[in-house]
Amino acid sequence: MAEKKKEDMKKVQAEKVDEVIEEAVEELTEEALEDIVEEEVSELDEALARAEEWENKFLRISAEIQNIQRRANEERSSILKYRSQDLAKKILPSLDNLERALAVEGLTEDVKKGLEMTRESLINALEEEGVTEIKADGAFDPNFHMAVQTVPADDEHPADHVVQVFQKGYQLHDRILRPAMVVVAQ
Amino acid sequence: MAEKKKEDMKKVQAEKVDEVIEEAVEELTEEALEDIVEEEVSELDEALARAEEWENKFLRISAEIQNIQRRANEERSSILKYRSQDLAKKILPSLDNLERALAVEGLTEDVKKGLEMTRESLINALEEEGVTEIKADGAFDPNFHMAVQTVPADDEHPADHVVQVFQKGYQLHDRILRPAMVVVAQ
Repeated sequence: MAEKKKEDMKKVQAEKVDEVIEEAVEELTEEALEDIVEEEVSELDEALARAEEWENKFLRISAEIQNIQRRANEERSSILKYRSQDLAKKILPSLDNLERALAVEGLTEDVKKGLEMTRESLINALEEEGVTEIKADGAFDPNFHMAVQTVPADDEHPADHVVQVFQKGYQLHDRILRPAMVVVAQ
Repeated sequence: MAEKKKEDMKKVQAEKVDEVIEEAVEELTEEALEDIVEEEVSELDEALARAEEWENKFLRISAEIQNIQRRANEERSSILKYRSQDLAKKILPSLDNLERALAVEGLTEDVKKGLEMTRESLINALEEEGVTEIKADGAFDPNFHMAVQTVPADDEHPADHVVQVFQKGYQLHDRILRPAMVVVAQ
């Protein structure tokens, strides 16, 4: 009986020991873990923040690339569209000279034909590149015409209408190379 | 004495318990930590890898932006440099016509003067845009000249030299608009 009691006591003691061990393990583990996990978590947070920062930088710069490409394309199109502007502007006086030469009295047929051919080829070259003569036979439009003289309006020439063209105007697509110099009725 | 022995036994037992607890705590803590730390470390590794990946993507795209801008600038410069190419090419026949008209016999002084002025203004306009006449008075150069006829070489005209220019050639900066049509000694 005493033996049995001793056994029981040992058992109870062993159980208590297990309990104490368990509790102590729990407590110590938690503490140690808290420290380590805290450290790891701050490193993780930092890494996550860095990842997000680089991702955002990447996204911003990607959007910027599209802007750069769009602007470059727009600029390219504009340069191509108006590429002939400078040379065309400089050629206009030659065309004026040709037309003045053609207006001279007493030209031989040969010379007249040569001048006409030259004028035609010049106008064709300009037209192929988008240069056209500005219309100047109706209402005066300050966007296209420059009034260099005014005359009183009459039945034939109503007010604010072009009466005569002194020098032809030209435009490249929608851009004025030079306005038409005109006489306007007032 | 029995009491003292009991006390001693208890003490020894308690020490043993402490030892066991310590060992168990150590073992269990290590195990638990390993698991948790392993998990945290894999999350951290993942986050670090992500951060690095986005950083690399950012760096690659930054380099790409510089390439895009460089290419766009090069293209822009090239378009601007040769912008007058098309119109200039189309104007050359007008210049030919003018020079043919000027070569006609029996022109009046007025007409001649008018044609000269037109020719000068045309050549000036072209020159201002970078168009120049190709030299064709020395050695034949297939990069600039096109041989349309050959004649036997003599003292005055050594072999592989230009003897006569049929039609003038022109270049825009370093680019040939059309080669000079020439007769070559052989």
